[in-house]
Amino acid sequence: MSEPSQVPPLSRFPVPDLEELPTDLAERIAEVADKSGFVPNIFRALAWRPVEWRAFFAYHDALMDKESPALSKADRELIVVVTSAANDCLYCVVAHGAIVRIRARDPLLADQVAVDWRKAPLTAAQRVMLEVALLLTVDPVAVGDEHFAVLAEAGFSQEDIWDIGSISALFALSNRLAHWAAVPPNDEFYLLGRVARE
Amino acid sequence: MSEPSQVPPLSRFPVPDLEELPTDLAERIAEVADKSGFVPNIFRALAWRPVEWRAFFAYHDALMDKESPALSKADRELIVVVTSAANDCLYCVVAHGAIVRIRARDPLLADQVAVDWRKAPLTAAQRVMLEVALLLTVDPVAVGDEHFAVLAEAGFSQEDIWDIGSISALFALSNRLAHWAAVPPNDEFYLLGRVARE
Amino acid sequence: MSEPSQVPPLSRFPVPDLEELPTDLAERIAEVADKSGFVPNIFRALAWRPVEWRAFFAYHDALMDKESPALSKADRELIVVVTSAANDCLYCVVAHGAIVRIRARDPLLADQVAVDWRKAPLTAAQRVMLEVALLLTVDPVAVGDEHFAVLAEAGFSQEDIWDIGSISALFALSNRLAHWAAVPPNDEFYLLGRVARE
Amino acid sequence: MSEPSQVPPLSRFPVPDLEELPTDLAERIAEVADKSGFVPNIFRALAWRPVEWRAFFAYHDALMDKESPALSKADRELIVVVTSAANDCLYCVVAHGAIVRIRARDPLLADQVAVDWRKAPLTAAQRVMLEVALLLTVDPVAVGDEHFAVLAEAGFSQEDIWDIGSISALFALSNRLAHWAAVPPNDEFYLLGRVARE
Amino acid sequence: MSEPSQVPPLSRFPVPDLEELPTDLAERIAEVADKSGFVPNIFRALAWRPVEWRAFFAYHDALMDKESPALSKADRELIVVVTSAANDCLYCVVAHGAIVRIRARDPLLADQVAVDWRKAPLTAAQRVMLEVALLLTVDPVAVGDEHFAVLAEAGFSQEDIWDIGSISALFALSNRLAHWAAVPPNDEFYLLGRVARE
Amino acid sequence: MSEPSQVPPLSRFPVPDLEELPTDLAERIAEVADKSGFVPNIFRALAWRPVEWRAFFAYHDALMDKESPALSKADRELIVVVTSAANDCLYCVVAHGAIVRIRARDPLLADQVAVDWRKAPLTAAQRVMLEVALLLTVDPVAVGDEHFAVLAEAGFSQEDIWDIGSISALFALSNRLAHWAAVPPNDEFYLLGRVARE
Repeated sequence: MSEPSQVPPLSRFPVPDLEELPTDLAERIAEVADKSGFVPNIFRALAWRPVEWRAFFAYHDALMDKESPALSKADRELIVVVTSAANDCLYCVVAHGAIVRIRARDPLLADQVAVDWRKAPLTAAQRVMLEVALLLTVDPVAVGDEHFAVLAEAGFSQEDIWDIGSISALFALSNRLAHWAAVPPNDEFYLLGRVARE
Repeated sequence: MSEPSQVPPLSRFPVPDLEELPTDLAERIAEVADKSGFVPNIFRALAWRPVEWRAFFAYHDALMDKESPALSKADRELIVVVTSAANDCLYCVVAHGAIVRIRARDPLLADQVAVDWRKAPLTAAQRVMLEVALLLTVDPVAVGDEHFAVLAEAGFSQEDIWDIGSISALFALSNRLAHWAAVPPNDEFYLLGRVARE
Repeated sequence: MSEPSQVPPLSRFPVPDLEELPTDLAERIAEVADKSGFVPNIFRALAWRPVEWRAFFAYHDALMDKESPALSKADRELIVVVTSAANDCLYCVVAHGAIVRIRARDPLLADQVAVDWRKAPLTAAQRVMLEVALLLTVDPVAVGDEHFAVLAEAGFSQEDIWDIGSISALFALSNRLAHWAAVPPNDEFYLLGRVARE
Repeated sequence: MSEPSQVPPLSRFPVPDLEELPTDLAERIAEVADKSGFVPNIFRALAWRPVEWRAFFAYHDALMDKESPALSKADRELIVVVTSAANDCLYCVVAHGAIVRIRARDPLLADQVAVDWRKAPLTAAQRVMLEVALLLTVDPVAVGDEHFAVLAEAGFSQEDIWDIGSISALFALSNRLAHWAAVPPNDEFYLLGRVARE
Repeated sequence: MSEPSQVPPLSRFPVPDLEELPTDLAERIAEVADKSGFVPNIFRALAWRPVEWRAFFAYHDALMDKESPALSKADRELIVVVTSAANDCLYCVVAHGAIVRIRARDPLLADQVAVDWRKAPLTAAQRVMLEVALLLTVDPVAVGDEHFAVLAEAGFSQEDIWDIGSISALFALSNRLAHWAAVPPNDEFYLLGRVARE
Repeated sequence: MSEPSQVPPLSRFPVPDLEELPTDLAERIAEVADKSGFVPNIFRALAWRPVEWRAFFAYHDALMDKESPALSKADRELIVVVTSAANDCLYCVVAHGAIVRIRARDPLLADQVAVDWRKAPLTAAQRVMLEVALLLTVDPVAVGDEHFAVLAEAGFSQEDIWDIGSISALFALSNRLAHWAAVPPNDEFYLLGRVARE
């Protein structure tokens, strides 16, 4: 698995070289690479369509780079892992699983929620959050006023509730793009956050 | 059903007045209103989150306001109607059904594909397009290389194929937003394109 | 779509000319044509089997041409539209959707319940009626005594409850006949009841 | 199980006494009782609605009391058992299972097809017949022209093919009536045809 | 069906002659044959793998040859019939259906629960037992603490509850072995326990 | 997550101390602990039922501690991971995922097949093996002679084919036991085989 010839392609579609990219894409990617030490494949796989790339990451950042008292960044990532697992999306489960490990400072939680979130060590509010977000993922017409009441009772604000649904919705898009283009997660993601932060 | 007090709300979330909106949103909405004669509810229901609003419509326009020899604007709308029907999304079925009627100059086709696209009067290429787009909607992990081969054989270019999958993916997001916020279609959409263009 | 050569066939099976039909069929069909202005395709598509035709329409009329204080003719048609939509039956959704528009004097309700009855503007009793009728359509073994209790509490008499289940059951038959023979709705149905009764 | 007080009710709805029935119903029921030695419960459970009763049995007889070179009476009953098993309908599985045993002169076949028709000892034509009839039962929109081609290749005439689909469709109705009214099979049916015709 | 040439094979895999078997297998099989009058096919179909045979029957006997005040041998067999019916396993439905008839001294109950256990004449505790055992069969991740509470309230001990789940789990294995090897039930099972024990 | 009070229980049922166990169980467990450095939780969670424990591990070892030219130990573990992922069984996905990493000397493969085996880097024979094993897991009645033909063509012997189905079947049992008792994987499993064997 370590020889160059066996490296799987990044996408079923063309992947531009980094130096060919429009400046704003190149800058954002350089910033991510600085922080992570590598360029996550999804940044490169979507880049042949710069307008869509910009829209996707603008939407992503508006929902994910954000915290509120009831809905932390780690919670947002949990929604991504659970809904992406329901869609069998390897890229999102592995990449956002790594972020869960880092943000929740828990090396096990991402795998636990990806396979069986119902038995995972979560707060009652997190359970409600995941249950309703997942319902929107798998059976969107079944979401009703009763679910909004349950979320509010669990302590989520109106802004939080919007975010919970929107993250589920955004990754319904994201999971399908990753499946369509067959984008694999970078090897680095698999191990991130598993060993004590030295 | 026609009395003001019975008008259903536009959203489960706050809906800003048009005059409160940021200039770019207000301008785009005015433009749409000029063209259609009314403001489609989705433009108003997403507007309390301007960053997401901009990302959503930028993404939408990049995929929908576009034509290629094999993938017309009407074809793109057919994908929206069929995948949105699979998600039971009234807003998208009714609003994009109206656009299908107008763009395909066919008063019946939208209803036909929304309920049973397999028996609808479509070309062979349209059938392949809808079958694969719908598979990505309902069972994304099942999409495999064989489906890309079938799309290419049906005459779709690589750019077209990206668009077909991306439209399915974008409306996986859009359908879930409309369900989450419970956005109803404007009454005007139901009748648009049904009667001969006089 | 308007040229004779493109008219889709009425059925996968033989369709007798109207003048060849047994007198009782011909008379009933003439009566319907007088009232509607056209002969609904299902009347012609089933006619090559007169015994079955008679049984089908006798059953249909016994359940649909009837009203009670709690179960109007429009309510009965709503059951048809919702259960037929679950079975993706274009003929029944379009033809009975037209009847809903006319009987409920509402140009939008049929489309609303066909796509997402749960968010449609219905009474509480109508919701219970549709929920249980739909359960019988999609998962008949799951119907239990508790559903009968809920229907009774919603104000339905024993006769009404029989009718609710029987309409769901009859259209389980009807939807399958229409799919089997591939009977399209008449073009006229699509527009009926959409524009103000002038 | 043998004490009167434990006899389960014949229906969730009123069951008229035999002597109260309209003459035509009473006569037909007497004829069946003469032949079978008992009155099958479904004849009594539907009898409080004589018009529907007449339609149901007229439809039933038109499809089931009939034979063609490729579609015997036993074959028709096999369709009933297999599709009713898919709907978990005890009445139809047990009552028509008894008829299969008698008509096919095989004490095992009914149980075999009710649980797993794919491994049952059937002819190739019977397999095709059951596969397509069952598809119409469980996923009616999926029936396409290709299934009609397969049925024709297996030797079924156009009349036979109509009957195959219509039997599946009629028992979609019948199974739902039996579930709705909770009609149990008569005890006699369970043993009929299991022991050698002495 | 009675001619030797039509006897279906006992398995898709090799079936050793009884005289070739290891002594412990041969003895246990002789014992069963003495008691039943025939050798159930599953004993022969698994015998080409003696280690697995021993493990399977040891597990089986530990769970099935056992009684407690709340969980009789007949109850255990009911779990087998209901969960095996959900898996469409003819061998287990027919063979264990025969045992239900004998142990419950009821000629009808096995068929009733195999097709529609919800309407069968069962105690409240039996209903809870079947509902939770079946949930473990068809959707194991959905079993939660609430189901254990319901079982305990219905009077089942901790040991009983373990047995209920383990029987469901063991027949998840058993049903799959029978499907994999295509093992048919012996003809004798179909009639066992149907006629009064004379 | 690291404080003693937060250690989740090993089971919903009693867990005997190691020193209380029958000698044969204690010896086998000591052997595993020597080799792995810890006692896998499933060995302790099943131990309150020694007869079932012995049967389970005898069955397990007969199928898993074995190799043939076409079906390696790593291949057998791949079947476990893929079928257990379909059953959402955290214990089996994590514990057997660790064994896959070790036996296949690949730190990524287990996660790849657990989430989306279809896009994982596998041989053609492994794909066939997983596809048929998974079909037996999720829809056992659908396995037919054609699947045996495909397995044989892929190079699997009759013995291998038995093993492929039996492993799927055994973990249908194992997954359900782990869900029933709510047995968590040991923390050690999550990291095993992820970092280079130094």
